[in-house]
Amino acid sequence: MSKYAMFGKLTAHPGKRDELANRMLESSETLNGMEGCIHYILHADEDHPDDLWVTELWESEEAHAASLKNEKVLEVIGRCRPLIAGVTPIKVRPLGGKGFGGTA
Amino acid sequence: MSKYAMFGKLTAHPGKRDELANRMLESSETLNGMEGCIHYILHADEDHPDDLWVTELWESEEAHAASLKNEKVLEVIGRCRPLIAGVTPIKVRPLGGKGFGGTA
Repeated sequence: MSKYAMFGKLTAHPGKRDELANRMLESSETLNGMEGCIHYILHADEDHPDDLWVTELWESEEAHAASLKNEKVLEVIGRCRPLIAGVTPIKVRPLGGKGFGGTA
Repeated sequence: MSKYAMFGKLTAHPGKRDELANRMLESSETLNGMEGCIHYILHADEDHPDDLWVTELWESEEAHAASLKNEKVLEVIGRCRPLIAGVTPIKVRPLGGKGFGGTA
């Protein structure tokens, strides 16, 4: 089974980044108890005041897809959506490294 | 002490991405034994055949700086450099999430 990564930039509506980040970190608390999520890290872009970057690593694409059916996750997504002006996904295939959690 | 993240795109010379990735994964083996490196994950960009993305999370900026003085790390960087056509760093501040390793 191949690991699955999500990777992308979220642009908040002007001035709304902190609020969006706080709501997304609540989502990460939900993910703490979730099977198959190896990490989910939120970053603030230092050069662009409305941008956040999310890096997620999952045991499999299926584990990620299952998380999107979780009611708590869907509720957080619903609460974040009004604060998001744009999403720029970067399609990546995780190759390995430290913290990868076993073999690829 | 604040966590420190490195985040960026590496563009290999045409056709050299796999070779670069293999050398960088050797570097991650070196980092496995390194204090302060929470994760270091390498990804292949699915839409751009010469691009790799690296996401690194460290216990502190100092821990990252110390790794760059490690002889094994410097040796790997030296072996990777000839394969790299360009680097696009994204300056980020890690905020938190699952796999963050304790408090920010």
